[in-house]
Amino acid sequence: MPQYQRILLAVDLTDESARVAQRAKALAASNSAELHAVHVIEPLSLAYGGDIPMDISSVQDQIHEQAKRHLGEFTKQNGLLEGHGHLIFGRPDSEIHRLADDLGADLIVVGSHGRHGLALLLGSTANGVLHGATCDVLAVRVGETSST
Amino acid sequence: MPQYQRILLAVDLTDESARVAQRAKALAASNSAELHAVHVIEPLSLAYGGDIPMDISSVQDQIHEQAKRHLGEFTKQNGLLEGHGHLIFGRPDSEIHRLADDLGADLIVVGSHGRHGLALLLGSTANGVLHGATCDVLAVRVGETSST
Repeated sequence: MPQYQRILLAVDLTDESARVAQRAKALAASNSAELHAVHVIEPLSLAYGGDIPMDISSVQDQIHEQAKRHLGEFTKQNGLLEGHGHLIFGRPDSEIHRLADDLGADLIVVGSHGRHGLALLLGSTANGVLHGATCDVLAVRVGETSST
Repeated sequence: MPQYQRILLAVDLTDESARVAQRAKALAASNSAELHAVHVIEPLSLAYGGDIPMDISSVQDQIHEQAKRHLGEFTKQNGLLEGHGHLIFGRPDSEIHRLADDLGADLIVVGSHGRHGLALLLGSTANGVLHGATCDVLAVRVGETSST
């Protein structure tokens, strides 16, 4: 009885993404579902409130290049199909929701630290993804609950 | 490759619980996992801020009896084992976390409306359950996103 047909795995591309990917892959396998991965690069101006007193375009470019390389490695390691890795620039929550809608995903899988705050930078929080999602959301617990 | 061994399904016992139960049962089946269900009755004094100018003990008793009956029907309908239906009185989020820890659950399944507020009464919100959970949380989308 397949429940899910298209699963979107949202990753911050830290070491913890491996654990989240493992869950998503197992679910995709048991549901014979299509698996996509997305990484959202949050603009530094958004992360810091739009008030940065310097030109950050080269820093942003470097972040983008590095993310592209890491996402490529990630999708390869996890056996994702060509074109199933998505790199997006914007606000994580809303971009993940938008892509999930575009793809027709019925499940979003995201890592969760059970905390607010810092995790937002270059990644996303399970909480933000949960609100406003039009499909199911699996929050995979990563790291220690007490860590920062 | 079983991922989950013990799944805790948190339900508000409304009609929408059937859909959430369906997801939880399918996951339990594909993982050969033990399935438990919990319904938390929130004390009226908590829900209304502790300032109710009347004796509400009989109302609270009626709510308890009705919830007990509904949970019994729910566990029976969903083929849960004897003793796997849990009725708890208290604050939903923390009671669900406590029971999940006590049972050694590795996944909590909860319905989510993608909204705050009213859903708290006699139930719980996926958001509250997500924060502070020490295991994975699957939020199953129920109802219309735009509904209240």
